[in-house]
Amino acid sequence: MEKEEKFGNDNGEAQEEKKGFKDGSICGFESLDRLLNASLKPEVFQEVSRLLLGLNCGRALEPISLPESAFALSSKHDFDLQAFCFHADKELLREPRIVRVGLIQNSISLPTTAPFLDQKRAILQKLKPIIDAAGASGVNILCLQEAWTMPFAFCTREKRWCELAEPIDGESTRFLQDLARRHNMVIVSPILERDVNHGETLWNTAVIIGNHGNIIGKHRKNHIPRVGDFNESTYYMEGNTGHPVFQTAYGKIAINICYGRHHPLNWLAFGLNGAEIVFNPSATVGELSEPMWSIEARNAAIANSYYVGSINRIGTEIFPNPFTSGDGKPQHADFGHFYGSSYFSAPDASCTPSLSRYKDGLMISDMDLNLCRQLKDKWGFRMTARYDLYAEMLARYLKPDFEPQVYMDVKTVWKA
Amino acid sequence: MEKEEKFGNDNGEAQEEKKGFKDGSICGFESLDRLLNASLKPEVFQEVSRLLLGLNCGRALEPISLPESAFALSSKHDFDLQAFCFHADKELLREPRIVRVGLIQNSISLPTTAPFLDQKRAILQKLKPIIDAAGASGVNILCLQEAWTMPFAFCTREKRWCELAEPIDGESTRFLQDLARRHNMVIVSPILERDVNHGETLWNTAVIIGNHGNIIGKHRKNHIPRVGDFNESTYYMEGNTGHPVFQTAYGKIAINICYGRHHPLNWLAFGLNGAEIVFNPSATVGELSEPMWSIEARNAAIANSYYVGSINRIGTEIFPNPFTSGDGKPQHADFGHFYGSSYFSAPDASCTPSLSRYKDGLMISDMDLNLCRQLKDKWGFRMTARYDLYAEMLARYLKPDFEPQVYMDVKTVWKA
Repeated sequence: MEKEEKFGNDNGEAQEEKKGFKDGSICGFESLDRLLNASLKPEVFQEVSRLLLGLNCGRALEPISLPESAFALSSKHDFDLQAFCFHADKELLREPRIVRVGLIQNSISLPTTAPFLDQKRAILQKLKPIIDAAGASGVNILCLQEAWTMPFAFCTREKRWCELAEPIDGESTRFLQDLARRHNMVIVSPILERDVNHGETLWNTAVIIGNHGNIIGKHRKNHIPRVGDFNESTYYMEGNTGHPVFQTAYGKIAINICYGRHHPLNWLAFGLNGAEIVFNPSATVGELSEPMWSIEARNAAIANSYYVGSINRIGTEIFPNPFTSGDGKPQHADFGHFYGSSYFSAPDASCTPSLSRYKDGLMISDMDLNLCRQLKDKWGFRMTARYDLYAEMLARYLKPDFEPQVYMDVKTVWKA
Repeated sequence: MEKEEKFGNDNGEAQEEKKGFKDGSICGFESLDRLLNASLKPEVFQEVSRLLLGLNCGRALEPISLPESAFALSSKHDFDLQAFCFHADKELLREPRIVRVGLIQNSISLPTTAPFLDQKRAILQKLKPIIDAAGASGVNILCLQEAWTMPFAFCTREKRWCELAEPIDGESTRFLQDLARRHNMVIVSPILERDVNHGETLWNTAVIIGNHGNIIGKHRKNHIPRVGDFNESTYYMEGNTGHPVFQTAYGKIAINICYGRHHPLNWLAFGLNGAEIVFNPSATVGELSEPMWSIEARNAAIANSYYVGSINRIGTEIFPNPFTSGDGKPQHADFGHFYGSSYFSAPDASCTPSLSRYKDGLMISDMDLNLCRQLKDKWGFRMTARYDLYAEMLARYLKPDFEPQVYMDVKTVWKA
């Protein structure tokens, strides 16, 4: 199943048959939500959704009505477009702080054998109508996927892909600055960064572009995978920007890049710094992580009382030279199907359905940021967290002679 | 839906109709897994299970065949009995370390108006055949639910329920010590503890009984809820036993009691101390937490590379005197339906289906503890965790004058 989608999955009619299960095959279903919706009686689907999407009290997420121009772009450029509204209580002393937030997932546009500049510019042009649809829909804050300007080439361990790195104020940033100004929209742009002021080193970085087209700041990925084909430590090192929160015109946001989603402490630190929305721009394939995809972000949203926007790229990227992955698989030229499935999670344990597993897409959600504090007051996680215990324990754990707190059963005879 | 089950839900025939959705009503379905299994075509169910139960590579969890005597007990005493086997790779230098682990969920037995001693002893007698079924099935380590000797009376805020607290070596412990010896089984017994050596104070405690009937140690609940009817801070305080791991004859276990499951740092600390199985004995109701139930424990298992056993009690407990919950609900005599749904999670993101939402039950799983280190080696979460960042940040956060790392958009005009 992971290997079915090749280039052009976003526009090939031949692929259309695989996207539902109308053809009798289950392999290519668009999303879990649509699969269940098509397969279950309405009353069963409703109850299953209550559990799976965390829709308590029988409250379904309301779809948002978008302008016709957004649907026209979605139809013309064949990308999935979904929009939902999270619930929050009305407060007596604060006005609602409703923000419209967008996530974009996409495949690459040209084969990885095309000239580098053509590859990059084709992606920029592909993204433009999707970003315009977000703008037409009134999106306030938009986040793109990890390393969105390039194929996810780190699996190859070929250093030539480093050429695709850009400085913070490079071509892709300028491209997005223009769109940010035009649509009065904050845009988070995760790229491979070339740090020209520090010896031309590389980082996996998110650039935060304000709604006036200015650069508010950047964040560099904190945790680097060394898993199968994802040996990204060949290319860049652990980030040195801490856990910054960016106070944009529309809300306080942070970015937990890709593999950082496996680290609860990383999510925690963005929360302690005050984030209300944390984006998780990712690139991950089905065989490795799909069953975790619906768990980690939702857990982070619950535990830290903030919204999470999860983004994963689309399609299977085939590279010119086969590579081995160090785990005994024969050499191969792709590392599986990026399954998309971008979605939002809320602090009350609810979440939206996911975008397609096969198509480019734009997911939009209205979220009242007041919900974050409402959940803090309801559950009290921050106040009951006993951070002193953990500050002390982590400090002890860091010492090479750390001794775990273990009680042996003295009645058991232990082998030496 | 939360209010349908009253006393005797575990044996009343009148309740039977509600347990499936055969009657056309969806409210009383037994478990998500059974609901989907009954509603979906086999090939769709398989794909849905792959995602929902984390069964990658097409590997379904194999059921375990249990002795006839276990099924006879399950049938005679009307409790749900399920058993599955998790997968792990064979290793070249270590033998498999397969442990059979059990979880018991149950409703109380007598009305809360019955004499206290009768209530307690009726629960003990109710548990005996379920524990015997675990023994007959060769279970090595068994965990009971939170405060299993009593109704979950903390909602009432009546101090008379304190009488049901017991010292670590009290009647319920002696009852289980005998069964532990008889079945050569480690038993984790979560009770309301009376600490006679420290001014007769109360704790929410798990007693760890070794397979020789000895008491290996105890752990006291670290994080106390102050949520709705769960204002348990009226009765006992935050635990003072740290994050102990108990090296039993069958493996290294720890206990994260109930509300502690909402705290990723609590899960983390048990992992840093070396736990291979962490139990989460709980008492929680549908309206409050059901959509979180399948997320938090699985996330903990993934993030910390250990197994988790999640247990929740069963039924709706009605108290003699109505109480208010401080959140504006009218006074009421119960706080909703405890939805059971006990299940196991593994470090590879897989999990078992859940036990019934309505019936007492025994969930059994075979788990090769070698899987924990296999996942550590595969994903490298411990090595990529950068604990130094977080020790430092938590130490800073604890200070009253902590300043979050926030970058303001200087192009935005901020209101004072």
